[in-house]
Amino acid sequence: MLIVQKFGGTSVGSLERIEKVSERVLKSVAEGHKVVVVVSAMSGETNKLISYAKHFSDSPTESEMDTLLSSGERVTSALLSIALNAKGQKATSLSGRGAGIVTDSNHTKARIESIDPKPIRSAIEDGNVVVVAGFQGIDEKSGRVTTLGRGGSDLSAVALAGAIEADLCEIYTDVDGIYTTDPRIEPKAKKLEVISYDEMLEMASLGAKVLQSRSVEMAKKLNVNLVTRSSFNENEGTLITNEDKIVEKPLVSGIALDKNQARVGLIGVVDRPGIASDIFKALADANINVDMIVQTVGHGNSDSEDLTNVAFTVSRDELESAKNCILKFKANNELQDIEVNDNIVKVSIVGVGMKSHTGVASKAFSTMANERINIMMISTSEIKVSMIIEEKYSELAVRSLHSAYELDK
Amino acid sequence: MLIVQKFGGTSVGSLERIEKVSERVLKSVAEGHKVVVVVSAMSGETNKLISYAKHFSDSPTESEMDTLLSSGERVTSALLSIALNAKGQKATSLSGRGAGIVTDSNHTKARIESIDPKPIRSAIEDGNVVVVAGFQGIDEKSGRVTTLGRGGSDLSAVALAGAIEADLCEIYTDVDGIYTTDPRIEPKAKKLEVISYDEMLEMASLGAKVLQSRSVEMAKKLNVNLVTRSSFNENEGTLITNEDKIVEKPLVSGIALDKNQARVGLIGVVDRPGIASDIFKALADANINVDMIVQTVGHGNSDSEDLTNVAFTVSRDELESAKNCILKFKANNELQDIEVNDNIVKVSIVGVGMKSHTGVASKAFSTMANERINIMMISTSEIKVSMIIEEKYSELAVRSLHSAYELDK
Repeated sequence: MLIVQKFGGTSVGSLERIEKVSERVLKSVAEGHKVVVVVSAMSGETNKLISYAKHFSDSPTESEMDTLLSSGERVTSALLSIALNAKGQKATSLSGRGAGIVTDSNHTKARIESIDPKPIRSAIEDGNVVVVAGFQGIDEKSGRVTTLGRGGSDLSAVALAGAIEADLCEIYTDVDGIYTTDPRIEPKAKKLEVISYDEMLEMASLGAKVLQSRSVEMAKKLNVNLVTRSSFNENEGTLITNEDKIVEKPLVSGIALDKNQARVGLIGVVDRPGIASDIFKALADANINVDMIVQTVGHGNSDSEDLTNVAFTVSRDELESAKNCILKFKANNELQDIEVNDNIVKVSIVGVGMKSHTGVASKAFSTMANERINIMMISTSEIKVSMIIEEKYSELAVRSLHSAYELDK
Repeated sequence: MLIVQKFGGTSVGSLERIEKVSERVLKSVAEGHKVVVVVSAMSGETNKLISYAKHFSDSPTESEMDTLLSSGERVTSALLSIALNAKGQKATSLSGRGAGIVTDSNHTKARIESIDPKPIRSAIEDGNVVVVAGFQGIDEKSGRVTTLGRGGSDLSAVALAGAIEADLCEIYTDVDGIYTTDPRIEPKAKKLEVISYDEMLEMASLGAKVLQSRSVEMAKKLNVNLVTRSSFNENEGTLITNEDKIVEKPLVSGIALDKNQARVGLIGVVDRPGIASDIFKALADANINVDMIVQTVGHGNSDSEDLTNVAFTVSRDELESAKNCILKFKANNELQDIEVNDNIVKVSIVGVGMKSHTGVASKAFSTMANERINIMMISTSEIKVSMIIEEKYSELAVRSLHSAYELDK
């Protein structure tokens, strides 16, 4: 097989760890595979370089940040290549530029525009293990190095796997794979053997931190078979692939918990046409990501019966800006009051099986009712049911849902 | 003026030092100059990266070493550019590749083959201070990063100054400039205002460590006006330029001392045709650099009157290999004995004025005679007189010559 193996910062966090990674790569080669490795910077290096830059400026020039930060991955790629060569395995490192990764000009958060598969293919044909510096590409216009932002090395790996039509893209981290829920909350959580792209996207955006959504989206788009597994043990990981390739589709794959949630309640909103649109446009203009929205019948005063209540959720770090955004509507007397609450969480049931089975959502609601947990907001999609509840019920909700859907079996 | 300013490892050895460098660059800009900066890696960084590579291999892959080591200069260039931008001075960093520096394929000790002046010129026209990562270029054939070996950042600076036809190339280090002799040996040593390329070459190869000969040779070839000065104070440095531009040519510019000297004496060499050629070819084949050679009448035994003695000097670290090279001639009975002596030094008087004045050498010999210092070997060129003496007389010889030529005046 042609395999792309990506090793994150903790997996290459020391010279000893890089040595271990070289042994793991050699094992794959010995099994007959052709291997392209994508590496992150050694853990701590990127933060060190950022702190250097911050010494000079609170907002350092972004193109220079990319030159600065991209050096971390280059160092790791050269070291791993040296380690492999020292063990008798022909290997060569390639920078993002060397690997043909072209991005847009959006420094510090560039998007990959194209990848030329030729440099890697020809290095493989020459018998090399190819070690690519992750997280980076070049802006074709300026010729300068760009970086891909958070989770960028995963993106590099997935995009390269797509470009060279690899059979598999393995993402090595310090966790074993994707679990039915966070094992720190429910010790009975089980590692999943397989999960679909769409389920993973719901899990990721809902708080499963193993893979960034961007990488899963790209894997889905390029039809790359992703595996997340640990570089610290030999356990099989979790395969993330196309739903069609999954034979036994479980009703529910996992329970996700997102603690980074806050709720904004708008009390007594005047019922003029376009008011909702105005409010949510103001939030969008301020780059605030609104998740759930619920509108209810108002409890306005007797002078004006045409009042409604609106509630929506945002991430906690955006709560303050969201509130500031809304204040002008209160000043204009277009709403009576603003209530904010950041003692809430979002718990979600995710599973492709829901598409063809009924009763999944109602089981969630009855489970909550049995535990006397009040559901404050609900939203559903084809493959998930999300509920906003008070934060203090987090563990109870996750554990009882995990058990209700028999995920511990 | 268009000025290239090169700052070495100690000059950019900390974030505070990089801040100081940015202030110095701004001062030059404020004086109306256009500035291209060439930077080394922060002191200690290159050695750290080498030690990382040595963890995996005693002889790490050279092309990977170049990828690894070139990252140090890139980091400094980005940081200095960030510092300049933070102070309101438009600046941009360029890697060796970005600065158009093309080398041969000789990894870890590449030679610059060409420089395209366009990228730097156009960045200057856009109002930038251009900060170039020193020590590196690219191999046009493979597209890989190469490094230029020891003193490589100086070479980058001189070559760039030549390519963009800069008026001046300032090399900033932790010393004030070139002195009439080593101030640690003779506290009365004076800093030179100006010295010719050829004198500097004699001084450098004879032990003045401020500039590598390669850089001076390139400055001479490209007719680049070089200044060496300190980044730690505002003192004027020493200008190294073409002899023709020096109006007052001193008889003697300086006294150089080279302690890295060893002498090999070959006793009773048979006088067959070609024997000297054979001996020195054997040394050359072993890459041993022979400096002085002296042949004297032999004191062979009575059976064979046709014996001579030959003595030559090599650097101390090559003494052992030189001796091993010669042993086969002894085994073949082509010489009677080998004497080695590494308790010697070479003291040299350097000055372009010698060309037009007689008596310079004889004053050196009489000074040595007055101090009862035995001269073991002598060699002269148009602009220098070198003498091999016992190491214990080093200080006495340097001080008395410094005084005899009135260099302390």
